[in-house]
Amino acid sequence: MLHSEDPRAALSWVIHDIHQRGWAMGTGGNFSLVLEREPLRLLMAPSGVDKGLVTATELIEVGPTGQVLSGAGQASAETALHLAILRETGAASVLHTHSVFATLLSTMYVAQGELAIAGFEMLKGLESITSHRATVLIPILPNDQDMTQVGKAVTERLHQQNPRPYGVLLAGHGLYTWGDSLFQARRHLEILEFSFELLYRKMTVQPVT
Amino acid sequence: MLHSEDPRAALSWVIHDIHQRGWAMGTGGNFSLVLEREPLRLLMAPSGVDKGLVTATELIEVGPTGQVLSGAGQASAETALHLAILRETGAASVLHTHSVFATLLSTMYVAQGELAIAGFEMLKGLESITSHRATVLIPILPNDQDMTQVGKAVTERLHQQNPRPYGVLLAGHGLYTWGDSLFQARRHLEILEFSFELLYRKMTVQPVT
Amino acid sequence: MLHSEDPRAALSWVIHDIHQRGWAMGTGGNFSLVLEREPLRLLMAPSGVDKGLVTATELIEVGPTGQVLSGAGQASAETALHLAILRETGAASVLHTHSVFATLLSTMYVAQGELAIAGFEMLKGLESITSHRATVLIPILPNDQDMTQVGKAVTERLHQQNPRPYGVLLAGHGLYTWGDSLFQARRHLEILEFSFELLYRKMTVQPVT
Amino acid sequence: MLHSEDPRAALSWVIHDIHQRGWAMGTGGNFSLVLEREPLRLLMAPSGVDKGLVTATELIEVGPTGQVLSGAGQASAETALHLAILRETGAASVLHTHSVFATLLSTMYVAQGELAIAGFEMLKGLESITSHRATVLIPILPNDQDMTQVGKAVTERLHQQNPRPYGVLLAGHGLYTWGDSLFQARRHLEILEFSFELLYRKMTVQPVT
Repeated sequence: MLHSEDPRAALSWVIHDIHQRGWAMGTGGNFSLVLEREPLRLLMAPSGVDKGLVTATELIEVGPTGQVLSGAGQASAETALHLAILRETGAASVLHTHSVFATLLSTMYVAQGELAIAGFEMLKGLESITSHRATVLIPILPNDQDMTQVGKAVTERLHQQNPRPYGVLLAGHGLYTWGDSLFQARRHLEILEFSFELLYRKMTVQPVT
Repeated sequence: MLHSEDPRAALSWVIHDIHQRGWAMGTGGNFSLVLEREPLRLLMAPSGVDKGLVTATELIEVGPTGQVLSGAGQASAETALHLAILRETGAASVLHTHSVFATLLSTMYVAQGELAIAGFEMLKGLESITSHRATVLIPILPNDQDMTQVGKAVTERLHQQNPRPYGVLLAGHGLYTWGDSLFQARRHLEILEFSFELLYRKMTVQPVT
Repeated sequence: MLHSEDPRAALSWVIHDIHQRGWAMGTGGNFSLVLEREPLRLLMAPSGVDKGLVTATELIEVGPTGQVLSGAGQASAETALHLAILRETGAASVLHTHSVFATLLSTMYVAQGELAIAGFEMLKGLESITSHRATVLIPILPNDQDMTQVGKAVTERLHQQNPRPYGVLLAGHGLYTWGDSLFQARRHLEILEFSFELLYRKMTVQPVT
Repeated sequence: MLHSEDPRAALSWVIHDIHQRGWAMGTGGNFSLVLEREPLRLLMAPSGVDKGLVTATELIEVGPTGQVLSGAGQASAETALHLAILRETGAASVLHTHSVFATLLSTMYVAQGELAIAGFEMLKGLESITSHRATVLIPILPNDQDMTQVGKAVTERLHQQNPRPYGVLLAGHGLYTWGDSLFQARRHLEILEFSFELLYRKMTVQPVT
């Protein structure tokens, strides 16, 4: 299952794993995997399904304008943001989660416009980071129910930031992360969630004197 | 199992899952699923059984006055509150849990009479909430060992509050939540438990300046 | 397995479950189940085995002076305390755990000599507690490597306290809890661990004003 | 599986278990098991693989200079540190993890050069510790991307410290621990991770007065 060649088996396994860790409770979050580039064809969970319960056969195929190509149910409104990120970055998979730590930190730091993560060996789990001395800047954008607008704002921000980050936070909403494969995206998710928990716990203690 | 047509299999799976997450330790919590509306017939766990160990065949059927219709064991005293909520809301399932975060927050905010949850995308997992700008008010009532009395107080409170909330806290006791199906009730539970953890963690850090 | 008639299967299942929750990491903790009263015959894990790895067939039988009656390996030094508690209380099972919360709270409150737990519905999961208005006092005794001495001190304390508590903490060491059956002891463990986590989290936030 | 004679099965089981607990997210951490002493032959995970996904057959064999003897993929740069620790200590297995608590505490205490753990019964899970009165000193060294240099610094520090500790922290990076067998190393890991969580939580509360 883990190394499955079958994209439906692989994506539904990743979704269940993410739900089990508490990063996509209820119907929260969504997840996409590119099946074909030209024309763009994505595998996704349909809108409003429970992320702990979705099965491989319930996943839908979505086309370049967010239309459902096959499968039952509707595409989530957040599909527009998945499409925008896939186009801007060339990624093969986008994972969007709603963890407690991502929600809390994105709310606290939205006025700063970004979250800085620095000095940790774990950052080397992000593609192209080769030293713990790196500082990774994760943009934080305001949340909005108009996902086409959010998609434009995210695209613009990713376009400006150099080097391009592997994640974006929406304030009070959650994380979008991605990668060149489903499992690279999952690795980036683990690294960023680890970092969010670490930054949170650091805020709960006094520095040692 | 997850999408089972069999209500006993579905309800016992949900109960085990809730116990595993630490939301109904020991004999804490209870869970009901409507089998028939007229006359009212509920599936529940019997009183005093361990929620991590109850099996599908041990679930009992309970009638409109809380009497046991079939199965071994007694109905919990809290059945009165399940019945009151099912009648007032028309829900198909009530889930009552005892998490650490629900117990702590309900004790801290009982004097305010409610807990306000606002500004989070996750709130959209509650039926009829369509924007992160919503403020969800979860009533908090004092705890009492007389569940008929508590049932009356909860009914009155649900009747007054508009829009009607999808959850009620009893102070130092835990959460009652519900839904139009077992899995909608479970989704509401996940959203509310996520929110309680988020509110708690927010209280443990200083605002960023 | 859960409701197994076989005491070896039941006890090893409970030990693994406790290890998985992080309440008996490494070789920490020990667990006993009475097989026969007269003469006293206990099922236990042998000394120094990993609690996440012990199998049903590795459990040993121990006699009234702590001697091994059957099975490979030695009885833990803490067997003396298990025997003392079983004699004083008439319990059928003793579960001894080393959770982070029990270790921390027992260290913080050892000067007070006890930990008070009050006002929570979950307390009703302890046998004979019928209201959330109850205050449960868990004695805290200093830790010591001489378990015969600790056994005497615990016996004396249990003898004095009325009503007799269902748990004792050793400072910086962990919890002993017990019950009239293995599963009642496990229920008491869940209730007490829930309470320790709750008391800890309460200490990490300011009261609401 | 747990007590498997097959080193590949045993090591891959331990790696998955460590990943599931969140102690080696993404590609973080690495793990070695001595197959033969003379000439030295190690079983390890290849560089850059996801620790939650690595299988028994993907493990590689590594020789005394860190060269790959069999299997696909490269040896991690951290192999140099595994080899240095195995030579200095004579251990049979080294486990290197990246938990949130180890990362946070190692950053906070790096100026002190060590972390002191004292007064807890759980310390007896470390080989040769026989009393909760022990104080265990875990060295903390600065992190560096030159693992040969880190290997020398760790070797020197382990050589000086008497009694030799069973773990070393690299600041902002994580823990190295070891043992005379894979399962003793795993036990040391559990004890040290327990201790790190305990020290962290102690810092989040005020002493009782």
